[in-house]
Amino acid sequence: MRGRFITFEGPEGSGKSTHVQLLADRLKAEGRKVLVTREPGGTCLAEKIRSLVREELDDPPVTRSEVLLFLAARAQVVSQVIRPALARGEWVLCDRFADSTFAYQGYGRGIDVGLLRNFNDFATEGLMPDLTILLDVPLEVSRVRLAERQAATSTAADRIEQAGVMFHRRLREGFLELAKADPARFAVIDSSGSRESVADAVHAAVGRLVDGTGIGGKSR
Amino acid sequence: MRGRFITFEGPEGSGKSTHVQLLADRLKAEGRKVLVTREPGGTCLAEKIRSLVREELDDPPVTRSEVLLFLAARAQVVSQVIRPALARGEWVLCDRFADSTFAYQGYGRGIDVGLLRNFNDFATEGLMPDLTILLDVPLEVSRVRLAERQAATSTAADRIEQAGVMFHRRLREGFLELAKADPARFAVIDSSGSRESVADAVHAAVGRLVDGTGIGGKSR
Repeated sequence: MRGRFITFEGPEGSGKSTHVQLLADRLKAEGRKVLVTREPGGTCLAEKIRSLVREELDDPPVTRSEVLLFLAARAQVVSQVIRPALARGEWVLCDRFADSTFAYQGYGRGIDVGLLRNFNDFATEGLMPDLTILLDVPLEVSRVRLAERQAATSTAADRIEQAGVMFHRRLREGFLELAKADPARFAVIDSSGSRESVADAVHAAVGRLVDGTGIGGKSR
Repeated sequence: MRGRFITFEGPEGSGKSTHVQLLADRLKAEGRKVLVTREPGGTCLAEKIRSLVREELDDPPVTRSEVLLFLAARAQVVSQVIRPALARGEWVLCDRFADSTFAYQGYGRGIDVGLLRNFNDFATEGLMPDLTILLDVPLEVSRVRLAERQAATSTAADRIEQAGVMFHRRLREGFLELAKADPARFAVIDSSGSRESVADAVHAAVGRLVDGTGIGGKSR
């Protein structure tokens, strides 16, 4: 039996890593072999790349360098982890994948999304998920979370806050546009509900993948 | 006065770093401001990327990941070091640049060179050298050097040796094809001569760049 490739997407704080784990637990309880990974990361090399992108360096990557580092990490985890697991018939759950590149560097940072798709196809050799769970958070919620984070880190300068909100708006709109353009692959799930209701919605979307009744449409 | 961007290309052991330094010394003696850098490297981030590509990792980069790491390092050094220096009117000498990607990953590893050119244009935002010095080594010389290296490291297995020679042949042919396709940018210099004669040939090629009489043709 062929494995399935399921990715989780959404902004910071939308609950991706929680729901990846909850879905993994349910699938294992149903007797499936499950592999959980994340991006950037998932291999020794890719985790080192992750730290280059995330650490506070004197010399942080410029946007183009950042894109290429994310793609380098993706090429490695696809080749060394995801494709081998799918070939063994496992279910692969990945916390972020190609759509994060399109949303963050494309819609967020203004790099041409068509160009990013070409680069991504190169990195993945054309591998795309069978199902992408987009955990959508209303902008008011992310605005509150952003303000909380800024208060916690004492970076409440107006300009930064405004840029943050604008960026978050573009990011959310980007994810939703990506989902709209590919309803056969995306399940958009409102993650502002309770953890249990969101986990049920995620599991239901996976059920539709399995029984072939299709993914599309917004569930809650 | 606008700066000039000069790159040095060629296989391992062709004398690139030696001749970068000798040219830098001559240009400085002529009163020019010179910046020497290398690829992958040249910034803190890019040197960290270099170590990911070069270190003996349990998880060495697959070819596609390697390409993207080289390009990420290039995007950073172009944006943070090379463009600013050119804008200050300096002469930038770089040990390897785009042509190494085309030769090693394109001709050497079989990735489509047109695709690599597109990716490189993205990484560099279209910056190409004013002059590229290709230090060419006859295959017999690189074959001897390869054999010496294999003897020194006790890796004289026939299959590896054959693969090494084949790879070296494709690499050299690749560099020469790149030079042939762009004679206005390349100066091909036989680096099997004496250090002084090669340094003179390099300096003469730079002189033709300055006085506008053109680069092309094979000099020795």
